[in-house]
Amino acid sequence: MPLAVVLVSPRNPLNIGAAARALSNFGFSDLRLVQPYEVAFREAVSAVGGAAVLQNAKVFDTLAGALADCSVVVGTTSVGNRELQQPIHTIEASAPLIRGHVATGRAALLFGSEKFGLSNDDLSFCHHLLRIPTVPETPSMNLGQSVAVCLYELIRDPSAIASPPVRRAVSGADAEQLTTMLLELLDASGYTNRIVAVSTTRKIRRFFRRIRLEQRDARLVLGILRQLLWKLRS
Amino acid sequence: MPLAVVLVSPRNPLNIGAAARALSNFGFSDLRLVQPYEVAFREAVSAVGGAAVLQNAKVFDTLAGALADCSVVVGTTSVGNRELQQPIHTIEASAPLIRGHVATGRAALLFGSEKFGLSNDDLSFCHHLLRIPTVPETPSMNLGQSVAVCLYELIRDPSAIASPPVRRAVSGADAEQLTTMLLELLDASGYTNRIVAVSTTRKIRRFFRRIRLEQRDARLVLGILRQLLWKLRS
Repeated sequence: MPLAVVLVSPRNPLNIGAAARALSNFGFSDLRLVQPYEVAFREAVSAVGGAAVLQNAKVFDTLAGALADCSVVVGTTSVGNRELQQPIHTIEASAPLIRGHVATGRAALLFGSEKFGLSNDDLSFCHHLLRIPTVPETPSMNLGQSVAVCLYELIRDPSAIASPPVRRAVSGADAEQLTTMLLELLDASGYTNRIVAVSTTRKIRRFFRRIRLEQRDARLVLGILRQLLWKLRS
Repeated sequence: MPLAVVLVSPRNPLNIGAAARALSNFGFSDLRLVQPYEVAFREAVSAVGGAAVLQNAKVFDTLAGALADCSVVVGTTSVGNRELQQPIHTIEASAPLIRGHVATGRAALLFGSEKFGLSNDDLSFCHHLLRIPTVPETPSMNLGQSVAVCLYELIRDPSAIASPPVRRAVSGADAEQLTTMLLELLDASGYTNRIVAVSTTRKIRRFFRRIRLEQRDARLVLGILRQLLWKLRS
């Protein structure tokens, strides 16, 4: 996906490193930094993890320079009291717009500095803004984490569904064998009251249908029952 | 959502803090740590951000203890060469399962240590596993970032769509006024070749329909055109 992640004035080398690692984890490679705190950038580059992305990161003096080849610019914000001039979407709603745009040109995703976020000047470069649906009490996310969440949303597969696990359920015969053996065991142990034996039988039969054991579990339980029965009778 | 985030043997105070912050950002509060590295935990508690979640975090000696009140346990893995015994789903597919389960009981989301992930012993407590769809070349995520991505997926709103921005598009009359004024200006500036004047008119007219200006932009452009025209004629 032709998407540039642009960090404006990042201050913390750990955050720069974490952002680079998120790009790397989700298959992105175009990291750009605008006026990073020099020491932080040098420290980040020398750290491990996401190393290739960081080595290839481009540094710019101005945001305009960083965005020169991007036809769509999306700013991230936790929304403050600022009067926002651009349309703002949740990240869930923004992602399809970004995926749509990158079919025709390069997009940029902008993240502000850890302390101040994006300035109004930075925001004026944006076509729209996105916000991660954090709770109002703690809206502001860690930089590295918000980069990870945004990139994840861009690559997540909306059609993914959990295929039910392949279960080789026990046959009726197996279930009945389990029922019989457990009843034998209960009988041998003195658990079964002769007067209510029929209702106990039904109860145990229903139990072995309800729990829907897999074949391998049935084998395990049968082995245990056999052993207990042998022990009780010997 | 009755969901516990369980960190097994976390080593890095920054990661513990980042995990707590992610819980806080997405409205969760139940953080549990199993045998955290003592120094790391103390350091994390004394750091800022996600403070309330960390102050209330519970520490356990065993994973079984941490999971005692959880009826569903989901382990996170980047999948290695391990032979996994549990069904594994991508996080997109796992989230609906977890949301379904928490309607009836408490769920636990398990994260392994930064270095080793979850052990086979830890995994044996899990009902299913989830993996974040990272690329095969860099599958392993930073702990704080993977907690953030998982919690985001749990609270994201699948029905969120970008409502088109409210645009008060210019009327036909306004578009025509813009067309006329720009043509006057082009004429006054000598841009318009008399021979092709008609085709220029059509070109400008189509231009002002194509760009679909909003009313406020139209006012801005009209003001500029008026000023330029005045300047050229004075």
